Amino acid sequence: MSIPQSTLNTRNEARQVAPKLIDLSEQVLYGDVWERKQLSKRDRSLVTVAALIAMVRPDQLKGHLERALINGVTKEEIGEVITHLAFYGGWPSAMTAARIAKQVFDAQKESK
Amino acid sequence: MSIPQSTLNTRNEARQVAPKLIDLSEQVLYGDVWERKQLSKRDRSLVTVAALIAMVRPDQLKGHLERALINGVTKEEIGEVITHLAFYGGWPSAMTAARIAKQVFDAQKESK
Amino acid sequence: MSIPQSTLNTRNEARQVAPKLIDLSEQVLYGDVWERKQLSKRDRSLVTVAALIAMVRPDQLKGHLERALINGVTKEEIGEVITHLAFYGGWPSAMTAARIAKQVFDAQKESK
Amino acid sequence: MSIPQSTLNTRNEARQVAPKLIDLSEQVLYGDVWERKQLSKRDRSLVTVAALIAMVRPDQLKGHLERALINGVTKEEIGEVITHLAFYGGWPSAMTAARIAKQVFDAQKESK
Amino acid sequence: MSIPQSTLNTRNEARQVAPKLIDLSEQVLYGDVWERKQLSKRDRSLVTVAALIAMVRPDQLKGHLERALINGVTKEEIGEVITHLAFYGGWPSAMTAARIAKQVFDAQKESK
Amino acid sequence: MSIPQSTLNTRNEARQVAPKLIDLSEQVLYGDVWERKQLSKRDRSLVTVAALIAMVRPDQLKGHLERALINGVTKEEIGEVITHLAFYGGWPSAMTAARIAKQVFDAQKESK
Repeated sequence: MSIPQSTLNTRNEARQVAPKLIDLSEQVLYGDVWERKQLSKRDRSLVTVAALIAMVRPDQLKGHLERALINGVTKEEIGEVITHLAFYGGWPSAMTAARIAKQVFDAQKESK
Repeated sequence: MSIPQSTLNTRNEARQVAPKLIDLSEQVLYGDVWERKQLSKRDRSLVTVAALIAMVRPDQLKGHLERALINGVTKEEIGEVITHLAFYGGWPSAMTAARIAKQVFDAQKESK
Repeated sequence: MSIPQSTLNTRNEARQVAPKLIDLSEQVLYGDVWERKQLSKRDRSLVTVAALIAMVRPDQLKGHLERALINGVTKEEIGEVITHLAFYGGWPSAMTAARIAKQVFDAQKESK
Repeated sequence: MSIPQSTLNTRNEARQVAPKLIDLSEQVLYGDVWERKQLSKRDRSLVTVAALIAMVRPDQLKGHLERALINGVTKEEIGEVITHLAFYGGWPSAMTAARIAKQVFDAQKESK
Repeated sequence: MSIPQSTLNTRNEARQVAPKLIDLSEQVLYGDVWERKQLSKRDRSLVTVAALIAMVRPDQLKGHLERALINGVTKEEIGEVITHLAFYGGWPSAMTAARIAKQVFDAQKESK
Repeated sequence: MSIPQSTLNTRNEARQVAPKLIDLSEQVLYGDVWERKQLSKRDRSLVTVAALIAMVRPDQLKGHLERALINGVTKEEIGEVITHLAFYGGWPSAMTAARIAKQVFDAQKESK
């Protein structure tokens, strides 16, 4: 899978401080867990995005929304996930997620 | 959809303290949002379970794991969601989720 | 103000592990901050209960709901705070708070 | 009640991604829950601000501090709520809240 | 290092739901990361316990307090960590941690 | 101990909104708790940094990483703490911490 550029930039930055963390990201998290067949890539993107919205992790949500679009989650579904999770993580987590999603969607329109 | 008995018990208890909250649960959250066609029931269960695991909400995870099984998420997929989210919400959130999932799976075996 | 018995029990338990923590509770948190006139006791109870509901701290919510009733927050207002905060902290935090509030309200009926 | 401009801007942005979420904000959260008489507007602002401080939601705290001032919470009371909640949500949540509050108070001085 | 019995029990339970998660615990988290020389075992226990206290993860705190004692953190130091973190994670997180620590310390006295 | 300039700036800003909070910071948190001999300054920095990473408090992490370096925690140890805590607080908390740590380390290189 092509890796979003923003993800590569973040990894290169973090590698200077915590090289083992990025080794684990590449070899265990992405090289092993994300590749397991027990759950589809689309489902993995759904649950990752859901977790990041609920925990309010805007720094990581951006790259994982880009990845979710690559993995076949539509923009309308992302909007609905955000609406659904407003009830579970609270309105503030959903409003922050909507702001990040708008940035991702707008950036994609511009790059076309 | 049949509502898990544990969910009904929880609602009846909460209704005595916060009746409007349960009205909103029944009319808005379940009567409206969960019924919208923009996202499948299975996807809604996936993102709900993911959010509850990541935020460590064991009280509500039990009922939503029961609902996820009804909505077509398999036990193996639930185990994989827990494993995947260990990396996003942290190992403790995954270990607590695994404990709750085991209770739900065991209770289902017994009731057969 | 009379201190709820459950609070005294918790302090005595914690004092054996972290005596300085309980000194700070008694001298700074309750002896100084809670006594300041810049905010009424009822308002302090409202914001404390709101924070505990939103952060999902059931261990401490029980004693602070007892204290809120002493400080003049009514049971109906507590139910409304829980309903209101369902939107800000998420439904799971409100459902857990309703369960604890029911325990507190029931215990008060029995003791009469 | 007049709605703070920053709130309107945020809603318009989110509406493009999650239109149902903003419908629910306007019809259920603000159109119904905030208007209920079981709790005063000032009390609703107090508990909302308390929840946002404790959960560290700076994006939403700004607009709700503006709303709290409209609803009759004074600047001194906001400072005291922040101080009080340092003990419940932790010092970092209070320090971040104080930074946001300073921005809101400074902006109000300038607009006069 | 001898593994606390409560940790083994938890792993065996979780393995039935999420076997890959426990493989990762044993091979990556404990087999690799905890064994790295860049940080002492005592320091790893300190930061693990601190994270669990601050995030309020009582399920996992118990086993990690047992491990911290094995790794050379004293009971007095644990009490002081709890007191110190009351200011960073909030009083409720510290009070819950003190309750768990008392259980661990009491169990150790009995087993002698 | 010399106080990092960024900490002094933050305090001066917060003092205008919540003067009592800063009095408590100076007299109780730093004047009393941080000076207690039951835990070394280096250990206090380790557990403070660990709590801030796990709770994702980037605003405060910056100043406390500067303080940790003053208190004898090395840059390599900070990188290892971040890697270790990826497993307890989740990858997103570690990636955000690595970004902040890189800023702190880069700023120190420039000031030499």
